[in-house]
Amino acid sequence: MQLLKDRINKDGKIKEGNVLKVDSFLNHQIDIELLEEIGKEFKRRFEGEEITKILTIEASGIAIACIAAKYFNVPVLFAKKSKTKNIAGEVYTSKVESFTHGKVYDIMVSKEFLLKEDKVLILDDFLANGQALLGLSKLVEDAGATVVGAGIVIEKGFQVGGELIRKQGIHLESLAIIEKMSVEDGVTYR
Amino acid sequence: MQLLKDRINKDGKIKEGNVLKVDSFLNHQIDIELLEEIGKEFKRRFEGEEITKILTIEASGIAIACIAAKYFNVPVLFAKKSKTKNIAGEVYTSKVESFTHGKVYDIMVSKEFLLKEDKVLILDDFLANGQALLGLSKLVEDAGATVVGAGIVIEKGFQVGGELIRKQGIHLESLAIIEKMSVEDGVTYR
Repeated sequence: MQLLKDRINKDGKIKEGNVLKVDSFLNHQIDIELLEEIGKEFKRRFEGEEITKILTIEASGIAIACIAAKYFNVPVLFAKKSKTKNIAGEVYTSKVESFTHGKVYDIMVSKEFLLKEDKVLILDDFLANGQALLGLSKLVEDAGATVVGAGIVIEKGFQVGGELIRKQGIHLESLAIIEKMSVEDGVTYR
Repeated sequence: MQLLKDRINKDGKIKEGNVLKVDSFLNHQIDIELLEEIGKEFKRRFEGEEITKILTIEASGIAIACIAAKYFNVPVLFAKKSKTKNIAGEVYTSKVESFTHGKVYDIMVSKEFLLKEDKVLILDDFLANGQALLGLSKLVEDAGATVVGAGIVIEKGFQVGGELIRKQGIHLESLAIIEKMSVEDGVTYR
């Protein structure tokens, strides 16, 4: 998606350790007009698919999911990150290992909002090692529902997540796939 | 806002201890059509005000702020809850005491996204003791920016937050103000 790549090139900040900061428009301050274009692009890429719910994970995924949901006319469900309460029986949970933060956390959704009839599109801002996406996918499977696909704004193509997800047979659409990046040379897209 | 009150009456769940669960449409599963009506209502209530930015707090505030932002044509900035990193000099921070969870946490925004020229509308889902709203308001003041007003979806009118905020001279608009509620008698609005 050229508009997105242009924006990353213009306002993204590359830090040592393959960190790309996009907090001026995507995950701290949020450019709603850009998100509307992103939402339309997801709709275009999943055109013709039956989708009944969009699933994402707090916090920055919520913005993307809510704006995109307008174009799909479906509700959004966001998984909560939890360190504490696992109310057995009432929630689907999944463990997610964050390589960036070096810790494992639980994500959860209430069972009453994820039904076996649901056709779920998973949306998130970043795909790196794919652990969050796999965790979300597991929640859907635990509910007996169907993962229609996953839409990602920025995929770090040099990390394993994309391959992991595609190998699982999940229809993955990433709007910008970064082949490599460096402080000196900037971002190269696939 | 009658549409909202009707929805609370229909789908809200009252629990012991003055807890109102609206997670089927507002803060876990999210009804985007309802949020669009809420966004339009905020726009109507702050009509004529100059607003350059919408500020909210993760996680559930993000959904409300992003959908409302369309009608104001401004970016959203969401404060992050943080237990750890206070990067001195780069962020504005504020302490928020959560009575519900019985703990104190820090909220923060990057200084680069809150400018002294900004006219800020603060949006959030609930107002109870008002601590989150006061914390957000302090971030704006620390930046030398202006709080134009605060928009709340559900105010618990029997708790002190609304009075605290109004006493500060902040233009507060709550779309549903709960006078009292009980498991037996349901919700009474002001």
